[in-house]
Amino acid sequence: MPIAYLTRRERFASAHRLFQPGLSNDENLNLYGQCSHPNWHGHNYELFVTVRGEVNPQTGFVLNLKTLSSILKGKVIEKLDHRNLNVDVDFLEGLVPTTENLAIAIWACIEDDINAMGAKLHCIKVQESENNFIEYRGE
Amino acid sequence: MPIAYLTRRERFASAHRLFQPGLSNDENLNLYGQCSHPNWHGHNYELFVTVRGEVNPQTGFVLNLKTLSSILKGKVIEKLDHRNLNVDVDFLEGLVPTTENLAIAIWACIEDDINAMGAKLHCIKVQESENNFIEYRGE
Amino acid sequence: MPIAYLTRRERFASAHRLFQPGLSNDENLNLYGQCSHPNWHGHNYELFVTVRGEVNPQTGFVLNLKTLSSILKGKVIEKLDHRNLNVDVDFLEGLVPTTENLAIAIWACIEDDINAMGAKLHCIKVQESENNFIEYRGE
Amino acid sequence: MPIAYLTRRERFASAHRLFQPGLSNDENLNLYGQCSHPNWHGHNYELFVTVRGEVNPQTGFVLNLKTLSSILKGKVIEKLDHRNLNVDVDFLEGLVPTTENLAIAIWACIEDDINAMGAKLHCIKVQESENNFIEYRGE
Amino acid sequence: MPIAYLTRRERFASAHRLFQPGLSNDENLNLYGQCSHPNWHGHNYELFVTVRGEVNPQTGFVLNLKTLSSILKGKVIEKLDHRNLNVDVDFLEGLVPTTENLAIAIWACIEDDINAMGAKLHCIKVQESENNFIEYRGE
Amino acid sequence: MPIAYLTRRERFASAHRLFQPGLSNDENLNLYGQCSHPNWHGHNYELFVTVRGEVNPQTGFVLNLKTLSSILKGKVIEKLDHRNLNVDVDFLEGLVPTTENLAIAIWACIEDDINAMGAKLHCIKVQESENNFIEYRGE
Repeated sequence: MPIAYLTRRERFASAHRLFQPGLSNDENLNLYGQCSHPNWHGHNYELFVTVRGEVNPQTGFVLNLKTLSSILKGKVIEKLDHRNLNVDVDFLEGLVPTTENLAIAIWACIEDDINAMGAKLHCIKVQESENNFIEYRGE
Repeated sequence: MPIAYLTRRERFASAHRLFQPGLSNDENLNLYGQCSHPNWHGHNYELFVTVRGEVNPQTGFVLNLKTLSSILKGKVIEKLDHRNLNVDVDFLEGLVPTTENLAIAIWACIEDDINAMGAKLHCIKVQESENNFIEYRGE
Repeated sequence: MPIAYLTRRERFASAHRLFQPGLSNDENLNLYGQCSHPNWHGHNYELFVTVRGEVNPQTGFVLNLKTLSSILKGKVIEKLDHRNLNVDVDFLEGLVPTTENLAIAIWACIEDDINAMGAKLHCIKVQESENNFIEYRGE
Repeated sequence: MPIAYLTRRERFASAHRLFQPGLSNDENLNLYGQCSHPNWHGHNYELFVTVRGEVNPQTGFVLNLKTLSSILKGKVIEKLDHRNLNVDVDFLEGLVPTTENLAIAIWACIEDDINAMGAKLHCIKVQESENNFIEYRGE
Repeated sequence: MPIAYLTRRERFASAHRLFQPGLSNDENLNLYGQCSHPNWHGHNYELFVTVRGEVNPQTGFVLNLKTLSSILKGKVIEKLDHRNLNVDVDFLEGLVPTTENLAIAIWACIEDDINAMGAKLHCIKVQESENNFIEYRGE
Repeated sequence: MPIAYLTRRERFASAHRLFQPGLSNDENLNLYGQCSHPNWHGHNYELFVTVRGEVNPQTGFVLNLKTLSSILKGKVIEKLDHRNLNVDVDFLEGLVPTTENLAIAIWACIEDDINAMGAKLHCIKVQESENNFIEYRGE
């Protein structure tokens, strides 16, 4: 049976700040630039989740997009959208909310649910701005 | 000689409906949601064809884009554009016209022509909406 | 009080066909080209609704986006999305479903609701493809 | 001499929260929904500034884009980008930072500088997300 | 009969250089910056032509898009695409090829043809980059 | 330590012409079509540089985006932007400036700098128009 890659885009708008609690304000500023501004800033993030799986010969689907979108909304988007990534999100606790860490943490949130549907999580892409994005592939 | 990946985008606007003839209307509705609406709906599809090959040291090309675009237009776009994917397309007969099946069927339409040009078909990506797309890589 | 223009984008995916019942197939083909294909084709339409009004000095809003989006979904999107514009839509009956007629008909669907909110409908823009769109401003 | 409209796009990434200090948390939540979340959220904003003026027959310019961009960066972008719109911005003090108020306030920041260059400020467009934007034209 | 605005997008890729023959290289550099680089540079231009007219009650069209596109291709795109705007284009002779002058000159190229179709040319928009565009409305 | 892929987008606007000095004008025209036009044409190019590396557990970064952007600007963009790819660019000398050759040459310009930062260059993508792009991955 042929194998295909299905990608679903979701969006969230969040505040964040890049800083390490163990560093001084000046050290954080030196390392993260204006991304460490103490009163926060924010982004319209785009999340692209790619799943790899056999195409079911009856349905013609790798998996049902509505189910995938429900999982993403329940496990990821509702926790991130219109929230503060440093303060409000259980699965980001203790992490500097860089785009890298965000992508890795989102992978962990949904990997089991994707597996349970008989497919495999292939890539988490998080786009922070039109000029920058991160991909994480479980490596 | 270095190897590069060339991608060409083409577009087509088609009607379709997701349903299995062996299922009742209610079963189709339950499985495919409003995508099974009996009077059809449609999309502006985007097709991205990626070809892998050596860069010819004289021409600087993997292959000639005009030739690639001609193949895509003759073998794929003219058959899909302003057509009904369930009814009008020979190479989709007997298939539920999901994005997955569309990508796999387009691969079969053009693989030989790409090979005959001395390159290798690498990926067929079909984007159905700004939130969903499928990639097929011949697996 | 200052006046601003608020625009909301919504999307719908529909099938349609351009033809006049009083013309022969050949006359329709001559007039509308492949857009008159008898088995339908379709598009991902984008709808941009622009409303003009005073900015409320308490709320800072022309009007509440959630209310506007609810109106658009209830009066327009639910009737068009995953539907056939020639067959399924009460407010398009008897019209050739060109982008022009679509924009004019959508204006009529929502004008009263916008007025009732204390603002004024300013423009309906319907984008049929990346190369073509129509604006209607109530003229 | 012919008259043209020149538009320049700039971008900024900011945190904000919609709330009125005179209302309770519940009243703010009822009015602004999740946009009133107390720990802030944020956006990648796009700013489009349109200037109207005669095309100088020597230079072929309405005005010099580099000068326009410098004004926008100095008067607007440096104050908004990677900042908190409720807390950090002098020209937004006392305002609910809705997109409407943002557009009106940006107009006031740059109107004199545009006039001093011999052109006229025509429109401030602020896009908060791919689905929502505000235009202010000095009315 | 209702009036609508129809917009068609076309694209062209051209080389150009901003300079005035009566100025020295240094004066041109001071005025136009790197846009005056003597060996040319180039852009992917986007042209948006907006036409205003009554919606024909039989056809549902302001005017036929295929006819409009043919006019644009014959009178404008074939003369600009893959050409040098300073050297190759009859209707730009003697002009500094700024985006402003390009928009004004394109208006003159097609105004009569649009009028002859019973509509009115409303706006020529030329987008030079994702950050800059010009609109000309015949003023 | 987890591994992620970081992509940075940069842009440049350049003139070029596709032709081989050893061929006649007619042979070049036959091979490259209007891309061989003798007076040049041009594009707004988009460059996407993807780097692969471990996510530093302290910083949360694969590498610092500001450093990456500085390298790209100094080694690539300043040499290409508002320049003629056939005439002005040392690292393209002797090459037909196809998108393929551009991607391969950009890889060579920055590979050592990326390695020196402890990451690995993964992919150079150059987009010449909305319909065509090339990826080079060091093969």
